[in-house]
Amino acid sequence: MTRSPLDLGLYLVTDRAALLGRDLFYVVGQAVAGGARLVQLREKRACTREFVELARGLVALVRPLGAQLVINDRVDVALAADADGVHVGQDDMHPADVRALLGPHKLIGLSVTGEEEARAARGLPVDYLGAGPVFATTTKADAGEPQGLAGLARMAALAEVPVVGIGAITAANAAAVLAAGASGLAVVSAICAAPDPLAAARELRAIVDAARAGR
Amino acid sequence: MTRSPLDLGLYLVTDRAALLGRDLFYVVGQAVAGGARLVQLREKRACTREFVELARGLVALVRPLGAQLVINDRVDVALAADADGVHVGQDDMHPADVRALLGPHKLIGLSVTGEEEARAARGLPVDYLGAGPVFATTTKADAGEPQGLAGLARMAALAEVPVVGIGAITAANAAAVLAAGASGLAVVSAICAAPDPLAAARELRAIVDAARAGR
Repeated sequence: MTRSPLDLGLYLVTDRAALLGRDLFYVVGQAVAGGARLVQLREKRACTREFVELARGLVALVRPLGAQLVINDRVDVALAADADGVHVGQDDMHPADVRALLGPHKLIGLSVTGEEEARAARGLPVDYLGAGPVFATTTKADAGEPQGLAGLARMAALAEVPVVGIGAITAANAAAVLAAGASGLAVVSAICAAPDPLAAARELRAIVDAARAGR
Repeated sequence: MTRSPLDLGLYLVTDRAALLGRDLFYVVGQAVAGGARLVQLREKRACTREFVELARGLVALVRPLGAQLVINDRVDVALAADADGVHVGQDDMHPADVRALLGPHKLIGLSVTGEEEARAARGLPVDYLGAGPVFATTTKADAGEPQGLAGLARMAALAEVPVVGIGAITAANAAAVLAAGASGLAVVSAICAAPDPLAAARELRAIVDAARAGR
């Protein structure tokens, strides 16, 4: 199957603790149906065997729908599941090491917080940056200080690759996040914890599409 | 550098919490100097970047001394550090998936507890089994029920590959562990927490060598 082109417009980052008891596959399916084209499987508690099984299941779910799946932190899980790439944080494997293991064709994303990390990311073999937290978030305990829209704009200006904003992004602030220079919206709770994940994804996707049409 | 032949006789499994405040590299160096020929880096709390750094450092330490390093659970860390292999538990990546990622020449070890898991390990692409806990252990919270020497003997009899015993093995019970059918001794506290890790390793190594000479 040909890989879909990278579309960072609406990017779902999973959090099984935020699903309101709903099944992960259900919510991811709804998100993709609603317009998410990139999904990050983030698991901080699953054992490796379960993590691989989840990754394989999600690849099988999202790829036929034209979306891509990246794995948080675990390059081995991405390789075993033949996922589309890996998203790493500053404490995870160095992007150069990830690239050596994944080869030239897989996606690598890197989280950055602040101008210093955005500057340090220049020249690294990554495909996009996840810049944040834009606003104060409760879904990631170690997310760091909120950077605000101005901080996001500074990180985006420094970046050599597309940037997605992350951190308490909602339909209410999404247009401002895109206007600040983000190529897309990375969301957790706005979809995972939405009463209607499909409707939530569609609403966010419409904001992305409108911003693109207006550029 | 040519890889050393696999010698399971004395196998150190690291536990940074058991080092009595001493440096990991110091204790591993002493263990290898005392006769450990296989070292497993087990890290349950390190972030991935630190885990890779530790693994690279230990490869550089033990390989010139004729010992080999395997990584607990993390195939990506083993690949990034070019370690000699991976040791997995029942909840970690399936050995067949590990083998696919590591290729035919790296070591794979698998933990088994009880006859059922020993039987299920038959035909898997592993180089050795870590069978235990032989005795009741406090260094691994999820180690399961002690199997005793009789349980170890049953697991060893079922195995198609060499078996190392693990779980509260000391110089006082080491000869009995080997007599029960183990090819080697996997130890954590007996070296990591020993007042003199070099002397502790030498004492255990002497028991292994004596058992081999007597066979």
